[in-house]
Amino acid sequence: MPKPNLFYAQSGGVTSVINASACGVIETARQHRDKIGKVYAGLNGIVGALEENLIDTSKESAKTIASLRKTPAGAFGSCRYKLKSYEENKKEYERLMDVFRAHNIRYFLYNGGGDSQDTANKVSKLSLEMDFPITCIGIPKTVDNDLPLTDNCPGFGSVAKYVAVSIREAGLDVASMCESSTKIFVMEVMGRHAGWIAGAAGLATEQEGDAPHIILFPEIPFNRDKFLRKVKSCVKKFGYCAIVVSEGAKHKDGRFLADAGGKDAFGHVQLGGVAPFVANMVKDELGYKYHWAVADYLQRSARHIASATDVDQAYAVGKAAVEFALAGKNAVMPIIVRGKGKKYSWRIGEAKLSDVANVEKMMPRDFISRDGFHITDKARDYFAPLIVGEDPPDYKGGLPQYARLKRVLEKKKLKRW
Amino acid sequence: MPKPNLFYAQSGGVTSVINASACGVIETARQHRDKIGKVYAGLNGIVGALEENLIDTSKESAKTIASLRKTPAGAFGSCRYKLKSYEENKKEYERLMDVFRAHNIRYFLYNGGGDSQDTANKVSKLSLEMDFPITCIGIPKTVDNDLPLTDNCPGFGSVAKYVAVSIREAGLDVASMCESSTKIFVMEVMGRHAGWIAGAAGLATEQEGDAPHIILFPEIPFNRDKFLRKVKSCVKKFGYCAIVVSEGAKHKDGRFLADAGGKDAFGHVQLGGVAPFVANMVKDELGYKYHWAVADYLQRSARHIASATDVDQAYAVGKAAVEFALAGKNAVMPIIVRGKGKKYSWRIGEAKLSDVANVEKMMPRDFISRDGFHITDKARDYFAPLIVGEDPPDYKGGLPQYARLKRVLEKKKLKRW
Repeated sequence: MPKPNLFYAQSGGVTSVINASACGVIETARQHRDKIGKVYAGLNGIVGALEENLIDTSKESAKTIASLRKTPAGAFGSCRYKLKSYEENKKEYERLMDVFRAHNIRYFLYNGGGDSQDTANKVSKLSLEMDFPITCIGIPKTVDNDLPLTDNCPGFGSVAKYVAVSIREAGLDVASMCESSTKIFVMEVMGRHAGWIAGAAGLATEQEGDAPHIILFPEIPFNRDKFLRKVKSCVKKFGYCAIVVSEGAKHKDGRFLADAGGKDAFGHVQLGGVAPFVANMVKDELGYKYHWAVADYLQRSARHIASATDVDQAYAVGKAAVEFALAGKNAVMPIIVRGKGKKYSWRIGEAKLSDVANVEKMMPRDFISRDGFHITDKARDYFAPLIVGEDPPDYKGGLPQYARLKRVLEKKKLKRW
Repeated sequence: MPKPNLFYAQSGGVTSVINASACGVIETARQHRDKIGKVYAGLNGIVGALEENLIDTSKESAKTIASLRKTPAGAFGSCRYKLKSYEENKKEYERLMDVFRAHNIRYFLYNGGGDSQDTANKVSKLSLEMDFPITCIGIPKTVDNDLPLTDNCPGFGSVAKYVAVSIREAGLDVASMCESSTKIFVMEVMGRHAGWIAGAAGLATEQEGDAPHIILFPEIPFNRDKFLRKVKSCVKKFGYCAIVVSEGAKHKDGRFLADAGGKDAFGHVQLGGVAPFVANMVKDELGYKYHWAVADYLQRSARHIASATDVDQAYAVGKAAVEFALAGKNAVMPIIVRGKGKKYSWRIGEAKLSDVANVEKMMPRDFISRDGFHITDKARDYFAPLIVGEDPPDYKGGLPQYARLKRVLEKKKLKRW
C-alpha cells in the first residue's frame, strides 16, 4: 500500500510567519518519509483542493523549504473562502473527499483562524461518515490574536512588534517637529473587533511622555469630548500627541469611527480609514497640525521586523501538527501554553477543534487602563514576551531575500470542478 | 582667550539618520578639544539659537552620543522655520549674532536641506559684515534627495530601503490573497515634487511580476486611461497589481491627484491622501478589491531598517563638517561624491553653500521607463548601492533602544527674545 499523503493549506489573511508554520510542517513530514508520502499544498488554500490544484512540495529543495521560515505572506497562496455547512453544500465536501481519495491524502492540516478550524473539524467528521477517514489537524494563525484556548496566535507577536516599533520611531519624529510644525500623529492599526494589536503598540511607552500617548480600542466606545480633552492635555504636557487607533474603533452606537457618511466630489463614500478621520477631528477642534499613517498590509507582512518568539512558535505549531497526526490524534490543534513562572516560557499544548471553531477571544477589560486610553501593567506582562527577539531575513543588495517557489502542480486525476 | 564654541542645529523634516550626522559632529569635535570648546545644539533647531536655548552636549556621556548614530528623528528637536532675508528681518540676524557672541560661538553647523543651506550662507556673509566672523558649514540632509551637487542626500538611502522592503513584503501579501480577495494594493510614499523615493521602491522588482508593478511619479502627468489599462493588464498577467504612488503625483494641469475636491459629511475638504484616491478609482472603474497604505512618518523614522551605507554617509558628512571648519573652510557643505568605477564607492567632496542653496534636483527623465510606470536600469544603477547594508539598532525586550538625552540647557546670558 502506498504511503498516505498530506495536504496542507493556508487560509484567510496571511501573516509574516505563516510560512514558518508551513516550513515546520514540510520539514517535519520530510523527517518521517516512512509514514508520510508527499506533502501537497493547496494552491490558494482550500480552493486548491476543490480545483485539484495540488502543489507538490517534494519538488522544492530543502534550501527553499528552509527559506520559508524567513518569508512573509502565504507562499502557496491563501484564500478567503469558507466552506458552507454540509447540509448547505454537500457537493463541496464530496468533491474534497474525491480529491483526497484520488491522491491518497489521509492527513489534512489547515493553517488558519477560527473559520478554518471549523472547516477542518467538519471535514474530520464527514470523512468518517464517508468511510475515508482523514486525520484533520488545525494550525493556528491570525494577526488578530482572537483564537481561544491558545495563549496567543502565531502571527500576532510580529505585528505587535511592528506596531510598537513603528509608533516609537514615528513618535520620536513628531517629538522633533512639534515645536513649530506637526503636533499630532495618528497611526491606524489592524485587529478587527479586538484591540490586541492596538494594545501591543502600548509597549512602546516605557517612560511617561513616550509615544503612544493615546490608544483608541474597539472595546471602549469613543467619547469625543473626553478624547479631545486628553489630546489637548498631552500636547500641553509633552508638546505633541501620538495616537494609535484600531481600525475597529467604534462610536457608542456601534458605528465605526471611520464611517462618517461623507462623500467625495463624485458622490462616492468617503475615502480613507479611521486615522485621517481622527486626525481631521483633532485639527478641526483644536487646530493642531497633524500627520497620519495607515500601515495596512505593511504591518502583517513585515517579516524584516518579525518577533523571533513568534517565528519559533509559528514553526513549532507546524511541526506539532505533523507530530499530532502521526500520533493518531484527530480534530485537534496545537496551541501555545504559557508557563506559570515569572520568566516567560511556553510549550505546545492541544485543543479540540470543536472548542476553537468560531469563538472570538476578546481583550480583557483589565488590559485597558481606567481612562480607556492606554494599557495596564497586566496587559504589558502579557504582550511583552511575545515581541522578544529579532530574526532578520537574509539580505542581498540591501533587500530581504524571500523564498521563490516553483509551485509545481501534481497531475490532475479528476474532472474539472 | 577661551576656545571658540560650536553651534549645531537640525532643520526641517527629520530622517532616520540625521542623528548619525549629529553623532559625527559631536564625536569629531570631542577629538579636537584643543580647538573647539563646547558643542551646543539648538533646542528645536535655529529657534534654539534665537531663544538662547542652547543644549550643552558636553553633559551627555560618550555612550549617549554614540547611541545617536542608531537613533532616528532629531534628538535635539528640529524646526520648520526659515530666516527671512536680512533686509526683511534684520533683527533676527542681529539676535543670532548676539547669541553667538554671548556664547563665544565661532562655528555654525547647519544640518538641513536647501533652505537651511541658504540660511547658513547668509549667516556666513553677515557675520563678516558684523565683524564677528562665523565659520558656517552646511550638513546635507533630506529624505527627498533633492539637493544639488551631492550624489545623494543622507536620509534618502534609508527611506529608499524602507519603501523597497515594504512594497516587496506587502506585494507578497497581496499575491497570496489575490485569487479570492484583494487584487490591488496602493502604497503612498513621500518625496514632495520629486520622484526619488517612489523610484527607489522600484528596486523591489527583480523579476518580471515582482511588486511594484506600477509607480506613479510626480514627474509624469497622470493619465487615467493609460493607468487603468495598465492596472487591468497587470491583474490579468500576474493576478494582482501593486502600485506605488508619490504624494506629489499630479494631473496634467498640475493639480495633485489627491485634490479631488471632495467634502465629508461636515463639509470638510476630503480626508486622506493620494493612495485612497487611486485605490478608489481602480475599484470604481475596474471593480477590484483593494487595500492601501500611507506610511507617512513611519518611512522616514524607520531606523530599524536603515541603510548601513546611508548611516555611514550621514556620519561622514557630520565628521567632515567639523574637519572643514577646523581646516578654515567656510560657507561650504560636505557632499557625497560617487566613484567612477563599476563597483560602488564614495568619498566626501565639497560644495559651496551658494551653489546648493534653493536649488531642487529633480529625477532625470531617463530614470523613468518609457511608459512612465517604472524605473530604468540607469535608475536601478543609481539607487541600488544606496540601500546596501543593514545597521540594526540595539534591542531590549524586542524594542529598539534609542538615545534618551538629558538636554541640559546652557545658562542664558541675554534678555528674552
